[in-house]
Amino acid sequence: MRQTVSLEEIYAPIEDQIAGIPKAILSILSTPNELAREAIGHFFSASGKYLRPALTFFGAGIENGRAREEKLVRLGAAFEIFHSATLIHDDIIDSAHLRRNIPTLNAKWSPQVAVLVGDYLHDKAIGAIFSVEAPRVTGLFLETAGTVCDGEIHEWREKNNFNLKEEEYLEIVRKKTASLTACSIEAGGILSGLPAEKTGALKRFGEAFGMAFQIIDDCLDFTGEEHEFGKTLGIDFEGGVLTLPLIRLLELVDERTQSEMFKIFKSDFGFAQFEILKNRLQEFGALDYAMARALEFTERARLELSIFRDSSVKSSLNQLLDYVLGRNR
Amino acid sequence: MRQTVSLEEIYAPIEDQIAGIPKAILSILSTPNELAREAIGHFFSASGKYLRPALTFFGAGIENGRAREEKLVRLGAAFEIFHSATLIHDDIIDSAHLRRNIPTLNAKWSPQVAVLVGDYLHDKAIGAIFSVEAPRVTGLFLETAGTVCDGEIHEWREKNNFNLKEEEYLEIVRKKTASLTACSIEAGGILSGLPAEKTGALKRFGEAFGMAFQIIDDCLDFTGEEHEFGKTLGIDFEGGVLTLPLIRLLELVDERTQSEMFKIFKSDFGFAQFEILKNRLQEFGALDYAMARALEFTERARLELSIFRDSSVKSSLNQLLDYVLGRNR
Repeated sequence: MRQTVSLEEIYAPIEDQIAGIPKAILSILSTPNELAREAIGHFFSASGKYLRPALTFFGAGIENGRAREEKLVRLGAAFEIFHSATLIHDDIIDSAHLRRNIPTLNAKWSPQVAVLVGDYLHDKAIGAIFSVEAPRVTGLFLETAGTVCDGEIHEWREKNNFNLKEEEYLEIVRKKTASLTACSIEAGGILSGLPAEKTGALKRFGEAFGMAFQIIDDCLDFTGEEHEFGKTLGIDFEGGVLTLPLIRLLELVDERTQSEMFKIFKSDFGFAQFEILKNRLQEFGALDYAMARALEFTERARLELSIFRDSSVKSSLNQLLDYVLGRNR
Repeated sequence: MRQTVSLEEIYAPIEDQIAGIPKAILSILSTPNELAREAIGHFFSASGKYLRPALTFFGAGIENGRAREEKLVRLGAAFEIFHSATLIHDDIIDSAHLRRNIPTLNAKWSPQVAVLVGDYLHDKAIGAIFSVEAPRVTGLFLETAGTVCDGEIHEWREKNNFNLKEEEYLEIVRKKTASLTACSIEAGGILSGLPAEKTGALKRFGEAFGMAFQIIDDCLDFTGEEHEFGKTLGIDFEGGVLTLPLIRLLELVDERTQSEMFKIFKSDFGFAQFEILKNRLQEFGALDYAMARALEFTERARLELSIFRDSSVKSSLNQLLDYVLGRNR
C-alpha cells in the first residue's frame, strides 16, 4: 500500500477555505430557535472530515479558477450541511447511538427531534446553495439530492435480501454516496468556469472516489475500532444491510457455511456472532476482495486527473485517493 | 355564520388547473424505485383539499395574469408535494396512525420509510419549483421551507409547556402553517407578473387565511368526527401540544379545575378523559373563543382583497374564507 499522508497535509492548498467552513456552517444555520441551536451545536461539536467541501475547493482550484472565495466557501459549507442532514436521518433509520464518537441526535434527544433538525439542515443547505446564484450548480445539486434519497430508499428496500448482487450494491452506493461526492467536486469546477470536458472529468473523479470511499466505509463497519471509526460497529449488518464483504462471502461459501451465516443473521446479534462473522470474512478473503474493488475505483479516479496539468491541487487529489485506501476512520 | 359552498364550487374558476394536479404530482414523483412508488401511491390515493395549489392558481388568476399554464400547474403540484412531505414527517413526530382516513406511512410501513419518503418528496418538490425557472419564487419558497421547519421545531420545544401563551402559539402557527399558505398565493402572483403592492396583499391574505385555517384545525382536533376529519382525534393533546382552545381554558379556570386538567394531562389518556376535557372547553367558552379568533383572521384576509377588482376569482377567495370557518374536515 502507498504511503498515506494526513488529511491536514492533503488540504494544504485549500487550508484557508477549509478553515472558513465552521464559521460558514454556523452562519448558514444561525437561528433564534433554542432547541435547534443546541442540537446543531452538538452535532457540529465533533467535526467531520469536510471531504465534500474539500472536493468543492479542489474542483475550483485545480485550474486556478475564478470562483469568488466567499461564494465558494458558502457552497462548500452547504454541501457539508446537506451531507450532515442525511447523516442525521440515517442515524434515525439505523437507530445508531454513536457518530463521530458523540451521541447521535436520536440518542441524545429523540428520533422526532432528529427528523426535524435533519429537515432544517436540509432546507438551509439548499437555501445556501441557491444563494450562491449559480443556477447550473443549483440544478445539479437538486438532481443529486433526489438521487441520494432514491439510493437510501433503495438500500432500505434491499434490507435482509441475502441474494443481493454486487452490481445492485454498487448501484446503491453510486446513488447514495458517489452522486454527492461527484456533485461536490463538479460544482467547484462549474463555479470556477471550467469547460465541460473538465467538469466532466471532475464529476467522474468524484464518483469513483465516492465509490471507493463507501466500499471502505463498509469494510470498516466490520474491521474498524469503534473509538477510531467513531461509529457503532456492525450496524449495517445488524440492521440487515448487506454490504460488499458479506455479499462476496455469501457468493463464495458452501451451503453449510451459508446456513451458519443465516443463523447468525437471525440470532440476537452479539459480540460472539460478530467475531465468527469477521473470521469467515477474513478466511474467505471477502474483505480483501472488497478492498481490491475499492482500489480499482481509486485507479479509475486517478486516470480522470490526467486531463489536468500538474499542480499542488492535483497532487492533493492523488493523495486523497491514497488516504481513502488507508483510512481507519 | 355565512352560508358555505363546497370546495368544488369555490374551485370553479380554476377547475382545469386543479384537475391537472394529480397528474403533475405523479409526473414529478415518478421513480423506478418500487418501494418509493408504492408509498407515494398509497399516500396520494387519498387526495387532500389541494388548498395550496388552489391558492397559487387564485393568486395567478386574480388579475388575469400571464403565467404559463404548464408552469403554474407544476408550481401548484410542487407546493402540494412539499406540504405532503411535512405531513409525512409530522405523522412520525405525532406517531399518528390515520391521515385522510387511511393509514399513515409510519403506521403502514415504518417510521424509517416515512423519514426517507418524506425526504424524497421534499427534494422533488424543491426540484420542481426550481424547474419553473422563476428565481424570485424559488428564493421565496426556500426561505419559507426554513420557516416551516423552524415552526415545527418551535412547537416541539413547547410541548408540555402548560404556561404557553396565546401569542407564542400564534407565532408557531404563523411559522408552521401560515408562512406556506402565504408563499403559495404570493408565488402565483409573482409568476403572473403582479406588482409588489398586489403580491404583498396576496401574501398577507395567505398568511391570515393560514392562521384561521390552523386555529380551526386545532379546534377540530377536539370537536371533529374522526371519520369526517380523517385524522386521529385528540392527537395534539395526547402529544402534549397545547393549542388555542386549551391555552384559553387554562387562562380562565380556577386552580381546582386547573389541577383537574393537569391530572388529565398526566393520566393515560382515554375516551373518558377526552370527554371531560371537551365538556370543560365548551363550558368555559374556550372553543368559541378560538373560533372568534379564527373569524378575526378571516376578516383580516378579506380586507386584503379590496385592492383587487371584483371577479370570479375574488369571489372564490371570499368563499374560501367562509368555507374554512364552516369546515368539519
